[in-house]
Amino acid sequence: MKKLVLQSVYFQSKKTNVVIEGNRFALISDELSQADIDGAEVVDCNGLAIFPAFYNAHCHAAMTLFRGYADDKPLFEWLNNYIWPIEAKLNDYYVEAGSRLAVLEMIKSGTVFFSDMYYFRESTMKVVEEMGIRATIGVTIADALTPESQMKEHFQFLEKHTGESERIQLAVMPHAIYTNSAKTLQWCTRIAKNEHYKLHIHLSETAKEVDDCIQEHGRTPVEYIDSLGLLNENCVAAHCVHFREQDYHLFANSGASVVVNPCSNLKLQSGIPDLVGLRAAGIPVSLGTDGASSNNNLDMHEEMKVLALISNVNAGDNRLSQQEILQIATEAGAKAYGLSEAGRIEVGCLADCLLVDMNHVGFCPNNNVVSNWIYGANSEAIHSVICNGKFVMKNRHIDGEEDIVKEANKAIAKMKSEL
Amino acid sequence: MKKLVLQSVYFQSKKTNVVIEGNRFALISDELSQADIDGAEVVDCNGLAIFPAFYNAHCHAAMTLFRGYADDKPLFEWLNNYIWPIEAKLNDYYVEAGSRLAVLEMIKSGTVFFSDMYYFRESTMKVVEEMGIRATIGVTIADALTPESQMKEHFQFLEKHTGESERIQLAVMPHAIYTNSAKTLQWCTRIAKNEHYKLHIHLSETAKEVDDCIQEHGRTPVEYIDSLGLLNENCVAAHCVHFREQDYHLFANSGASVVVNPCSNLKLQSGIPDLVGLRAAGIPVSLGTDGASSNNNLDMHEEMKVLALISNVNAGDNRLSQQEILQIATEAGAKAYGLSEAGRIEVGCLADCLLVDMNHVGFCPNNNVVSNWIYGANSEAIHSVICNGKFVMKNRHIDGEEDIVKEANKAIAKMKSEL
Repeated sequence: MKKLVLQSVYFQSKKTNVVIEGNRFALISDELSQADIDGAEVVDCNGLAIFPAFYNAHCHAAMTLFRGYADDKPLFEWLNNYIWPIEAKLNDYYVEAGSRLAVLEMIKSGTVFFSDMYYFRESTMKVVEEMGIRATIGVTIADALTPESQMKEHFQFLEKHTGESERIQLAVMPHAIYTNSAKTLQWCTRIAKNEHYKLHIHLSETAKEVDDCIQEHGRTPVEYIDSLGLLNENCVAAHCVHFREQDYHLFANSGASVVVNPCSNLKLQSGIPDLVGLRAAGIPVSLGTDGASSNNNLDMHEEMKVLALISNVNAGDNRLSQQEILQIATEAGAKAYGLSEAGRIEVGCLADCLLVDMNHVGFCPNNNVVSNWIYGANSEAIHSVICNGKFVMKNRHIDGEEDIVKEANKAIAKMKSEL
Repeated sequence: MKKLVLQSVYFQSKKTNVVIEGNRFALISDELSQADIDGAEVVDCNGLAIFPAFYNAHCHAAMTLFRGYADDKPLFEWLNNYIWPIEAKLNDYYVEAGSRLAVLEMIKSGTVFFSDMYYFRESTMKVVEEMGIRATIGVTIADALTPESQMKEHFQFLEKHTGESERIQLAVMPHAIYTNSAKTLQWCTRIAKNEHYKLHIHLSETAKEVDDCIQEHGRTPVEYIDSLGLLNENCVAAHCVHFREQDYHLFANSGASVVVNPCSNLKLQSGIPDLVGLRAAGIPVSLGTDGASSNNNLDMHEEMKVLALISNVNAGDNRLSQQEILQIATEAGAKAYGLSEAGRIEVGCLADCLLVDMNHVGFCPNNNVVSNWIYGANSEAIHSVICNGKFVMKNRHIDGEEDIVKEANKAIAKMKSEL
């Protein structure tokens, strides 16, 4: 089994050694025996600190092609007038180019996993497979785009590809309540339940969505999906900016979890996610970037700092600790998608981690390494990224980076010419 | 006169050439004659975009030593129990080490100017002089620390050093209304007015400051400094998070300007600056990082994105344009401190600018270069920094960087041992 020794790495305020065997952490010890080192690739980590990698719990990777394409519009105008018309031009080539750019950006900013709700999923799966990180890839369902005849294909796709890859899981992803009929949402619920898939959905993102739902169904979106059976332990709901009083309790008792996406919510004027309220209700919360078209990047480090700042400002003594903030950006995202042995530096867990340059100016002085990581430094400080026991970035270099950027620029130019 | 040609640089959505003569922009032209190039240092800027540099309008540079030293405390507890006790140990050596770390961090994140309210100012001035950027350095006044006998020394210092340096200005900086008597504030007002200094002060930073002021003086802080004559065109007020209805109009008519510091305000739970309201009232607004002890960094790029996000979320159709956001982070800070020909890429203006790597993943694809700069990329994309016509960073390298980091770590360790 391949063995990797991270020698003299700074971990929880002192230097130690971390041994990885295969794709798991095997040993964390201040002393190394000859047996620990024998046959291993030994990496000198002096000056580097080890941190859990980021798990991006809500993303639309290929939309990175639309970064800056239509800024400063409210959600529905943004979707109707800009995003949906250009998305009509999507094909496998475009999605591959966009996904490759997205995964490049995610690795450079320390992300080893993303949950992806998008189209032409096989292209994204190919990219994830090749670039060495993890993903939960969605079978995205929106009535408008998914006639009933395609449902069967979706189901067949799930059956065919589940378990195919060590690093990729599939999930059922109805886009939202306003893009799917009750019947379709129930179909999704059933498939997820019977075949043990996670179900990922946009929920209560805007005040309009909540108002419309109450008008149409006499219920909040949370109450509505609960009435359909969809709100259960398989459910991972993105955004959840506009929970009403009764939603907190209902959601907390369901076993479902929330993914907050603060930068996208702020930028699209959807609102400010209520992290403190969600946590107080006992709802598990993870973090996502949403697509780069509404953020406008996939940098989970930046997302984490923005989340900490906007959540704590009005929290009084209920502010989240630095450990909780870090946990939300790492372990919580893994857990939301069923990776319970991931997102922390612990013997037996999946060997995903970041090596961070403590000589980066944001880490100086070293009064508090966790604080410096959340608030002082930025993703430039990430020296190397390990996913599943293997380096996917070393010394801030990723093979083929220039070509990926070039191809993405070419792809979006071609798409725009087709409008 | 030294001549620098930035050849084939991307500027406002096309490639052009920028010629710098001495410390000013001399020519921006798609064509270059032989005469333009003769005797010049020609820099190939293919793949680089030029942007205005950042002007950090409120900072306490040497406090970078206290990054992460005492997080997650409200302002007054943070000052009383943590910051003021360790500041009692300050000396020239500590301030020089802290200022050097701060200026290193600022240059790496694209800042060429900062306004500094702190102590042992000659050490900070020495660092600014040596490292090649600009600053407005304060004669910081707080009654508690400044007995009347020292006022004369402050005044003599101003007289002696004004105009000494091309890149450094001095200013009168009473710390706040709650750390100075009315008499001292009036003395500061008089000196600033008579000798044409800018006057910089913390103002209406917390709800407590406003409540206390109303209780003691029967007026809001804005009304109070107005009653002392301090609120005039020399005045640059930092924070201004808690303006009451009447403050907006009074402040707008005074000729004074505001510096917002969103990350620090959010982190210290002071509140959310009301950028949209300040701008609607016609108040000039610039941007600052505050000290790294409450941010916890000096990265104006990050500050700019956070400002844009938190300001626009509830702004409806009154959201600030991308050009305005950029202007607040650049030109507005220069203007607040009297540098009216700075902060923009324009013939005749001071030659301060950033060369930004358009191959940075946050700039890809190039749908909108300004949007990509504000929202997509981070400060890692800054390839080179020019201040006053000279490179202060080239290809992300600054001479002596490792030594500065080492010395700062040594300095804070020594300080803590003295507590």
